[in-house]
Amino acid sequence: MKSHTEYLTFNLPARLGFERITEQVAKVVADSGVKEGLVLVNAMHITASVFINDDESGLHEDYEKWLETLAPFDASPRTYHHNRTGEDNADAHMKRQIMGREVVVAITKGKLDFGPWEQIFYGEFDGRRPKRVLVKVLGE
Amino acid sequence: MKSHTEYLTFNLPARLGFERITEQVAKVVADSGVKEGLVLVNAMHITASVFINDDESGLHEDYEKWLETLAPFDASPRTYHHNRTGEDNADAHMKRQIMGREVVVAITKGKLDFGPWEQIFYGEFDGRRPKRVLVKVLGE
Amino acid sequence: MKSHTEYLTFNLPARLGFERITEQVAKVVADSGVKEGLVLVNAMHITASVFINDDESGLHEDYEKWLETLAPFDASPRTYHHNRTGEDNADAHMKRQIMGREVVVAITKGKLDFGPWEQIFYGEFDGRRPKRVLVKVLGE
Repeated sequence: MKSHTEYLTFNLPARLGFERITEQVAKVVADSGVKEGLVLVNAMHITASVFINDDESGLHEDYEKWLETLAPFDASPRTYHHNRTGEDNADAHMKRQIMGREVVVAITKGKLDFGPWEQIFYGEFDGRRPKRVLVKVLGE
Repeated sequence: MKSHTEYLTFNLPARLGFERITEQVAKVVADSGVKEGLVLVNAMHITASVFINDDESGLHEDYEKWLETLAPFDASPRTYHHNRTGEDNADAHMKRQIMGREVVVAITKGKLDFGPWEQIFYGEFDGRRPKRVLVKVLGE
Repeated sequence: MKSHTEYLTFNLPARLGFERITEQVAKVVADSGVKEGLVLVNAMHITASVFINDDESGLHEDYEKWLETLAPFDASPRTYHHNRTGEDNADAHMKRQIMGREVVVAITKGKLDFGPWEQIFYGEFDGRRPKRVLVKVLGE
């Protein structure tokens, strides 16, 4: 059994944003030498997500608007208890639950075993500072 | 270490629907010969889900109505940017985020290690065409 | 390859609640002897969640209120079809989809490979009875 661990760092310029990371994950898998196995990709911060969906900028705009409807940003202490602690990012903790913390992807014949449109994204909901993503490969 | 990969295909007759796939996944696990390990089951399309919940038709009606409230279908280009690209399924990309892309299930003594009511479902949000689900078994 | 399986039981006093289980999961990982691998932690019941987020009581109050907005409790048979079967917990099946069934966490150098604020929680949406969580360790 082989295992391989790498940490990627992202620093998105806005509070909310999405960045495609498929290529970075594919490189970690290639570097691991694993031909058959699983790769876990997870945000190491609790106001960020890793998810798999479409690489289409219109959809990303839709996600942004939709998440804002489901869990609106409000820095004031009125809406969210969490923002009475000096924080302003309670909404980000909710958006992250909708979009998810992690993905687990199959590795088959040395490659990410993906459908035609699957792309891995880093989702940021409280950006403008560096945050890490863990990539862990397990297999043979 | 053993690994085993299979692809299941589903073609649901309506835009939205749920199909129980526990038996198919259990068969893949049995065929793999793995006694202790993990099985990843994921939709390979980005407008579909694999999730674990109750096999109760009333609940599935509730899910359908609930998802429609959270992310309503609207083929027009007015509500969703994604639907200005010629697509009509932006809502399906959102419903899939709520219900999730994948499940990872423990294999113990050669079987899916499930609680009393756990059943695996394929969730379709833009159906009427064939789509694939990946099943990857890893273990010993 | 090593594998190790344990079952934790929780009995929360209210319908809805969150309990930190990081220490219990870390103990299972330590007991497994696995130094490099993955650990799956999942609710075995379909009205409960395992998720990773912040250990901050104000945020947990926010989650409770937010989930109640997205999927309100209503025991009557009017709102939810599921509650025409004698059940009263349809809302719990929805809350669990938002918060998720499971987490997969990397094990690196014998420890849960976590970012600074990551904590594992058991999320209960239909409590006042014992329910189980599965912890499965795979690695070497």
